[in-house]
Amino acid sequence: MTKPLNIGMIGYGFMGRAHSNAYNRVSDFFDTEYTPVLKAACARNAENVQAFADNWGYESIETDWRKLIARDDIDAIDICVPNNLHKEMAIACAEAGKIILCEKPLAMNSEEGEEMCQAVEKAGVANIVWYNYRRIPAVTLAKQLIEEGKLGRIFHYRANFLQDWTISDDLPQGGAALWRLDAAAAGSGVTGDLLAHCIDTAIWLNGGVSNVSAMTETFIKERKHNLTGKVEPVTIDDACAFLCHFSNGSLGLFESTRYARGHKALYTLEINGEHGSLKWDLHDLHRLDYFDHRDEGRVRGWRSIHVTDGDHPYMDKWWVPGLQIGYEHSFVHQVADFLESLSTGKPAGPTFRDALETQRICDAVLASAESGQWTDVG
Amino acid sequence: MTKPLNIGMIGYGFMGRAHSNAYNRVSDFFDTEYTPVLKAACARNAENVQAFADNWGYESIETDWRKLIARDDIDAIDICVPNNLHKEMAIACAEAGKIILCEKPLAMNSEEGEEMCQAVEKAGVANIVWYNYRRIPAVTLAKQLIEEGKLGRIFHYRANFLQDWTISDDLPQGGAALWRLDAAAAGSGVTGDLLAHCIDTAIWLNGGVSNVSAMTETFIKERKHNLTGKVEPVTIDDACAFLCHFSNGSLGLFESTRYARGHKALYTLEINGEHGSLKWDLHDLHRLDYFDHRDEGRVRGWRSIHVTDGDHPYMDKWWVPGLQIGYEHSFVHQVADFLESLSTGKPAGPTFRDALETQRICDAVLASAESGQWTDVG
Amino acid sequence: MTKPLNIGMIGYGFMGRAHSNAYNRVSDFFDTEYTPVLKAACARNAENVQAFADNWGYESIETDWRKLIARDDIDAIDICVPNNLHKEMAIACAEAGKIILCEKPLAMNSEEGEEMCQAVEKAGVANIVWYNYRRIPAVTLAKQLIEEGKLGRIFHYRANFLQDWTISDDLPQGGAALWRLDAAAAGSGVTGDLLAHCIDTAIWLNGGVSNVSAMTETFIKERKHNLTGKVEPVTIDDACAFLCHFSNGSLGLFESTRYARGHKALYTLEINGEHGSLKWDLHDLHRLDYFDHRDEGRVRGWRSIHVTDGDHPYMDKWWVPGLQIGYEHSFVHQVADFLESLSTGKPAGPTFRDALETQRICDAVLASAESGQWTDVG
Amino acid sequence: MTKPLNIGMIGYGFMGRAHSNAYNRVSDFFDTEYTPVLKAACARNAENVQAFADNWGYESIETDWRKLIARDDIDAIDICVPNNLHKEMAIACAEAGKIILCEKPLAMNSEEGEEMCQAVEKAGVANIVWYNYRRIPAVTLAKQLIEEGKLGRIFHYRANFLQDWTISDDLPQGGAALWRLDAAAAGSGVTGDLLAHCIDTAIWLNGGVSNVSAMTETFIKERKHNLTGKVEPVTIDDACAFLCHFSNGSLGLFESTRYARGHKALYTLEINGEHGSLKWDLHDLHRLDYFDHRDEGRVRGWRSIHVTDGDHPYMDKWWVPGLQIGYEHSFVHQVADFLESLSTGKPAGPTFRDALETQRICDAVLASAESGQWTDVG
Repeated sequence: MTKPLNIGMIGYGFMGRAHSNAYNRVSDFFDTEYTPVLKAACARNAENVQAFADNWGYESIETDWRKLIARDDIDAIDICVPNNLHKEMAIACAEAGKIILCEKPLAMNSEEGEEMCQAVEKAGVANIVWYNYRRIPAVTLAKQLIEEGKLGRIFHYRANFLQDWTISDDLPQGGAALWRLDAAAAGSGVTGDLLAHCIDTAIWLNGGVSNVSAMTETFIKERKHNLTGKVEPVTIDDACAFLCHFSNGSLGLFESTRYARGHKALYTLEINGEHGSLKWDLHDLHRLDYFDHRDEGRVRGWRSIHVTDGDHPYMDKWWVPGLQIGYEHSFVHQVADFLESLSTGKPAGPTFRDALETQRICDAVLASAESGQWTDVG
Repeated sequence: MTKPLNIGMIGYGFMGRAHSNAYNRVSDFFDTEYTPVLKAACARNAENVQAFADNWGYESIETDWRKLIARDDIDAIDICVPNNLHKEMAIACAEAGKIILCEKPLAMNSEEGEEMCQAVEKAGVANIVWYNYRRIPAVTLAKQLIEEGKLGRIFHYRANFLQDWTISDDLPQGGAALWRLDAAAAGSGVTGDLLAHCIDTAIWLNGGVSNVSAMTETFIKERKHNLTGKVEPVTIDDACAFLCHFSNGSLGLFESTRYARGHKALYTLEINGEHGSLKWDLHDLHRLDYFDHRDEGRVRGWRSIHVTDGDHPYMDKWWVPGLQIGYEHSFVHQVADFLESLSTGKPAGPTFRDALETQRICDAVLASAESGQWTDVG
Repeated sequence: MTKPLNIGMIGYGFMGRAHSNAYNRVSDFFDTEYTPVLKAACARNAENVQAFADNWGYESIETDWRKLIARDDIDAIDICVPNNLHKEMAIACAEAGKIILCEKPLAMNSEEGEEMCQAVEKAGVANIVWYNYRRIPAVTLAKQLIEEGKLGRIFHYRANFLQDWTISDDLPQGGAALWRLDAAAAGSGVTGDLLAHCIDTAIWLNGGVSNVSAMTETFIKERKHNLTGKVEPVTIDDACAFLCHFSNGSLGLFESTRYARGHKALYTLEINGEHGSLKWDLHDLHRLDYFDHRDEGRVRGWRSIHVTDGDHPYMDKWWVPGLQIGYEHSFVHQVADFLESLSTGKPAGPTFRDALETQRICDAVLASAESGQWTDVG
Repeated sequence: MTKPLNIGMIGYGFMGRAHSNAYNRVSDFFDTEYTPVLKAACARNAENVQAFADNWGYESIETDWRKLIARDDIDAIDICVPNNLHKEMAIACAEAGKIILCEKPLAMNSEEGEEMCQAVEKAGVANIVWYNYRRIPAVTLAKQLIEEGKLGRIFHYRANFLQDWTISDDLPQGGAALWRLDAAAAGSGVTGDLLAHCIDTAIWLNGGVSNVSAMTETFIKERKHNLTGKVEPVTIDDACAFLCHFSNGSLGLFESTRYARGHKALYTLEINGEHGSLKWDLHDLHRLDYFDHRDEGRVRGWRSIHVTDGDHPYMDKWWVPGLQIGYEHSFVHQVADFLESLSTGKPAGPTFRDALETQRICDAVLASAESGQWTDVG
């Protein structure tokens, strides 16, 4: 018999959909002791949240998140709202003893993040942050191969996250679907939205970062603001790039932008070690490229691994070899692993504390871009 | 308010899972008047079918398909069983007035198929066959581009379906998961299993086939048979290739095998016209390659279209640009279109009658391979 | 000290340039006992052949090929003229005791080819046919890997040669640069021009062909003829495809056309064996794709081998790893190997006799297309 | 009638071969007023340089470069020696009124480079530096497209040059073929050897660089030195990466290393503009990837342009569409363009003065890596 895990969802945007889908699907494919039950969805606009609840099968709605948190029939809260609201909600959840699944980035900055960590640790509630790319099977496979030592000593890590959706100067900023373009809601631009993903994967695969040298740019300086109706200065970074040293002595290079024509959501990573290298990108997320220098010389080459076999991470749960899964499945995997962690008591990462490390690096990146100095990660 | 479409599922194998998933998900993403309700699952083994029903949320089970068909609370039957059972079940369904969703290939041969067509047409019941690849967004986009005339006069069509899972001579044949290796259950080997998919897409994209010249091969002549426990002759075709003429004057080349190392499920198609060409394959199903000869000469090149934008077929229902969907979504799309067809009364293809055309070509292919002669499609 | 090999070249077209370049370059990169000396170029038009001779450094010209063959200061004749002239010239060369390097295909048909073989064998003169693709390093590497048994038992071989340069119906046929479109000069269309290349490589890599079933097509039925100035029926095959059985039990599939938009000179081959597979194409001729099923399961994948290392065939003679060579180098390699064969007395293939086998298969293909029957290779 | 350009070559290493090949081949393919004549090769070791001269057809040898420069029968000197010798030789050449073709990088640093520029400008001698990648046809095509405005406003430029040949700690440094690993001879490691190439192309395509923030790393700290026989500290940079701002407001990201497993000589560049993007890499140097945002939305995609057509830069001189040329051809093109510049009097870039700009950026990069500060380009 499975046990219910009663979910309260705050927010109903793109991520609200992705998470809801994951809760609904996980039990069709994974055997877990706990089964998510969509108990309530919460947002200020009753009509919108009701439509969302109807679509995904939430049993009820709330329009005040504090009421949601106060409900006894809710075990876990999913925080799917703009970044500037994470801290207050997460701390309230912790104090109410709720399990928390929080959208990334953890917080507006590492000070907020530290408060949140302390709150969940004090309360002893299970917690996780939605850095979903760790659970793309090809990325999880990369983690396995690195941990097994297949690459040996690491020399280089590089990652990009390239998009092109904000190039038009007609695009407004702020409010609703565009809160990511407003620093007041998002904290930063591509740094927190995109580079945070790259950093989370990087530190998972390659360990901590010591220091950074960064630059940011805002190509279009003013845009109409949806909340005020006026043309206002753009406060976010449109692009950010940084150099860094990892603690293991390897060099890192990261870049993110929303001004790279031809790239919709091209998250690319590569890691080079003495024995081999790995490459992956989000536009062909079901493949992992692997170079093994220990192959016989004449037939060495980058292998394009079609990560769809039963012995690949998570893939025994889905279809048959050769048949791709997609983006949304990374969320299903995260829910499956999180449910498993509730049974075993062994946390599934990234916890708030793990995600705080990413936040610290983001903070150092933004500080370095501001000061023009190499900056240690706090 | 949506209306329920009460589904009775016969079978619980790989396709049973794929279809059930599609029924469960369609309403989360598509607005349809009808909503599938998983009313009953049916198979001879009660324990197995109960586990299947529990997993996917079927409300009840049956162990006798005739009882399932007799139930008043069932609107539509999904026939997900070996090919040798399609005809009898489909005709019984039609006679009971049930809507039918039948796995491909339609039947063991075109004589059976013709009987099935006459049954559904006489009964006037909606019907469809699960040639799901038409509804991979990249394939649907190819259909749009061809219909718009972007390729002009067509000269060539070629398609492969390459697998490598039966190369080991230790693999037994027949029974349970391996019925596809037993001609008594499957009718043929790769011809009905794999080439039928290639043919369905081809005639959808490029029209009818006039005649064929084929060869088949069975590389491993004897295998242990699961149903008898004895080593018995292998009766299926391990590989099949054929040349053909399309009615529009273009030339076709088709090949399928389960003996092509390195290819798990590589369905590839290409079509060449006077103005341009299209290529697609199942291992990167979210991309369509397009060459437009009318581009400026110096910058002509094959375009790799990442079919994940809102203006691509079906993709406005899913995530945001750049984020892939996978194999299973083709079934969701098929259900969505079929539900829509129930509302509009305009059939969604491939109907039984459409699928009979594929069956006729398969029959001609097998006859040609047997006789060594060019064979007209009946 | 090196010995001169005095070359007489007949013809000055595209292949005349490619061969001349090979003669001029070979000694800069390969250590050979013999060094080609460009003694004389021959063609009917004195002005044109003089310009050609000046460009490439031929010491003299002739306008009558019989005079060229009669010269005592010529050791070897390179026959670079339309196919209908090969037989007469080659037999005359043999009778004059000249070494012969003959453009492919060997002859108009296998009867002619047989006469040519008998002539060179009777005369005991060294001979070779310019099937240059054997000596693309990636293709030579494929040969090595197959001979070492890396693929095991072979199941499938497939090859295409796709072009798109004759789609316009404004293109005339015949004469000068367009003799390949005139069956009177070329013998056939794509069969002798393109498929002959595919067949030569195939039988080198995978052994003999037993029988074939073919189809040909001429999409544009009439074109202006350059020699008559009149619109005349097109006598060549624009496209040809065939199925075949190899002597080793594997299945073959070949296709060639000049009507495949987007493909300039896309010669592609793939071979599938029980342990692995190989793929190569002419548009990225410096790469060989290799799949080794004996790799560890999780990290199996097609390897893209960048064939530019010192341990790859021929590549120790050129630059450093990572730096590509191109199409023309295949001719340099052929000259180098042929010069070596003159020193060792061990023939470098394909000899006339080897090339006759390709001719026989082409004849069977054309006969099968004509008769609509499976046809044994004579 | 063509005029001779008598060449004196100093050095006989890898680049000596590449340049000699270019001189020998240019007139077979390009119509130029001047024709290179290989008059003399010069190096200290008489035996080695004689062998080199014999191989490539140099008429004579010298063992003292000052004697070579003093010869009246030499028009142009090709300086193909380690970087620490460029300045003295180039200035002596200029003073002797010789045309100069100098290997890259121009000098050990920009101070030396400035002296060299002043010398050639004072002497009024034609000069060029062998940044050969500008003349890969795909790169030249990129230049054309950018100049025509096809990309619009530029936002991003990124380039890598990744190799993996120095990872073994058994590899010694210094002397003969390994002078590139010795800062005393090379000035720097990957910065001058590899990044200089990336920078030359970048400023040609995207204009000047304002400032940089760099890091360098030496992964293996000590190696046996060939000149001393002792284990000595490694003085070069094994890896270097930098951020920069271009004068046009776009952001740059550059990285180079000899520690990236799986990459032999992977020079990759990408440029993103408001209307489109371009990508190129040296491992498939005959292709240019182009994304045009102004294509119809549904069929937008990265185009892989096979740069082998007659309307592509330089390609009308070579073979037919679809047939690749290789690395060495970039040198032939450079010679062809340089010969043309001697006729027209319009300099062919990069001149010494052009190459000094690259040197200045390299200096700023090394200074920034040393200081940890953003550094203006001098």
